Amino acid sequence: MQPAIGIDWGTSSLRATLLDADGSVREERARPWGIRHLPQGGFERALSDICAGWPDCPVIASGMVGSRQGWHEVPYVDAPAGLEVLAEYATRFDAGGGRTLSIVPGVRDAVRLDVMRGEETEIMGALAMCPDLAITSQIVLPGTHSKWVNIREGRIAGFSTMMTGEIYALLTQHSILGAMIPAGMPSATDWPAFDNGVRTAHASGNAGVLTQIFSARTLALESRLERAAIPSYISGLLIGEEWRAMLASGWLASSAPTLVGDARQCTLYQRAATTFGLPQPAALSGTAAHGAWQVHLALATQRTGAADPSTQEPA
Amino acid sequence: MQPAIGIDWGTSSLRATLLDADGSVREERARPWGIRHLPQGGFERALSDICAGWPDCPVIASGMVGSRQGWHEVPYVDAPAGLEVLAEYATRFDAGGGRTLSIVPGVRDAVRLDVMRGEETEIMGALAMCPDLAITSQIVLPGTHSKWVNIREGRIAGFSTMMTGEIYALLTQHSILGAMIPAGMPSATDWPAFDNGVRTAHASGNAGVLTQIFSARTLALESRLERAAIPSYISGLLIGEEWRAMLASGWLASSAPTLVGDARQCTLYQRAATTFGLPQPAALSGTAAHGAWQVHLALATQRTGAADPSTQEPA
Repeated sequence: MQPAIGIDWGTSSLRATLLDADGSVREERARPWGIRHLPQGGFERALSDICAGWPDCPVIASGMVGSRQGWHEVPYVDAPAGLEVLAEYATRFDAGGGRTLSIVPGVRDAVRLDVMRGEETEIMGALAMCPDLAITSQIVLPGTHSKWVNIREGRIAGFSTMMTGEIYALLTQHSILGAMIPAGMPSATDWPAFDNGVRTAHASGNAGVLTQIFSARTLALESRLERAAIPSYISGLLIGEEWRAMLASGWLASSAPTLVGDARQCTLYQRAATTFGLPQPAALSGTAAHGAWQVHLALATQRTGAADPSTQEPA
Repeated sequence: MQPAIGIDWGTSSLRATLLDADGSVREERARPWGIRHLPQGGFERALSDICAGWPDCPVIASGMVGSRQGWHEVPYVDAPAGLEVLAEYATRFDAGGGRTLSIVPGVRDAVRLDVMRGEETEIMGALAMCPDLAITSQIVLPGTHSKWVNIREGRIAGFSTMMTGEIYALLTQHSILGAMIPAGMPSATDWPAFDNGVRTAHASGNAGVLTQIFSARTLALESRLERAAIPSYISGLLIGEEWRAMLASGWLASSAPTLVGDARQCTLYQRAATTFGLPQPAALSGTAAHGAWQVHLALATQRTGAADPSTQEPA
């Protein structure tokens, strides 16, 4: 198989992985060049820079780079959606500097009125790394816009987004709670405050966590919560709310979901799950590049499949 | 009775009302001089400016002016709290320019870990305007930090805060949803979008509205929600969430609560209540000045009460 470059290109960052002919990772690079923070020269310059010196091979990109604000808009495909349809609707174009770029489409859930871009590729990587997940499973991808995803027969069957990471940033940066946080506070999680937030979310019951967010102010006013620990408490409240809401909606099946994403984020979700009395979920990281490799394989199969009977399976 | 000046002094605005000897409103003034936006000369200059030309009489102030960031910190009194305790713990001091200012304390709910400043005075005004509310009632004060309040025997028995107005501002100004709203859009409510938001909050059931906020993005991407109507939809979602959460928590008694606050805000809450199948709540406006007048009366009684037996009721 030809090597490939996998690109995870979101709103705030750009990550590239050079994959060897067997799909293993040879080198990883990251730049703060999200689609809203491009360097001089825009998308083309950003791509040629991050791939500088790498071999001439296909580039598979996913994420907001395929949105209307991105490089080339790639329409969403509807769930249920698996690897074949993602490869079929990937948009391929000349990206300059002799490179050809394929952008993976995002997925739309027409029932829940929801969309994802980038997570579909991470999920395909996770399914390749743990084939047991492909039959029937539930996957949670923490993030700015957390996704809770149902998998059926290798496909993304449906999903639901919670804006947890974004609301955390709004509350800690722009709200009356943010104004109480000392400047230059350390970014390490204060675990007792985080656990307290998760327990408060759990105890909020069906009323939910929006009735509890103001408690951060009252606790801090009464010196029962260190001001530097307010972000950890809010983090616990909001991540706890994800578990609370998904339990209340009946989304969670009997087995624990699998976490996919940044290792530090996954640790927070694991800890919150156990505070809810749930079994600790397994966590997978670095799945985006593996997903890009799967799309690369599917694209190669599609390109040669119909023309070369030897690659077709017997009927 | 001596005339008085009632002052409602919050984070973002300053309102003053000159009250005649019978408690009726003679004149109202408003300035954008919240405690974080004071003019040159600070609190003293702001007060003397807004009261310019008014008679020399007691000034009763409530709101964030009594917080640590305000003019003079006045500690919270614990619920249950009625007019007598608010007057007893009001802090009186020389405000310069020959004026004496009394700041009404805020109220703390030690059970729900919650605090209010300013709403306690609005509530006292509402109870004076509608004495039926005093025995047992529920009052909702919409705002940046909405308060859902239980009244028992003329006292604030307990309450719960939802940061609805603040979260609305964060989502419409700083989030990915805000970035979709056209600049210079009109501030009038788009009623179909508002109703759609309320219905979505209602349908979210026990999962709650944080699972639904991202739907604003998807609806707009699919042109099923006008971008200019995104604020109205988010407003409906968040106000609907207040009704949903309070119904789910069992807070709402059989009779409808009474709304107290800005008339336009109350209209939104009334409309959302009927979408939830609840009877339309009554709404009272302009209660802060009436509450200041009640505190003025109670202060006068306290000052003369013990010294002058003629003002005491027979045992």
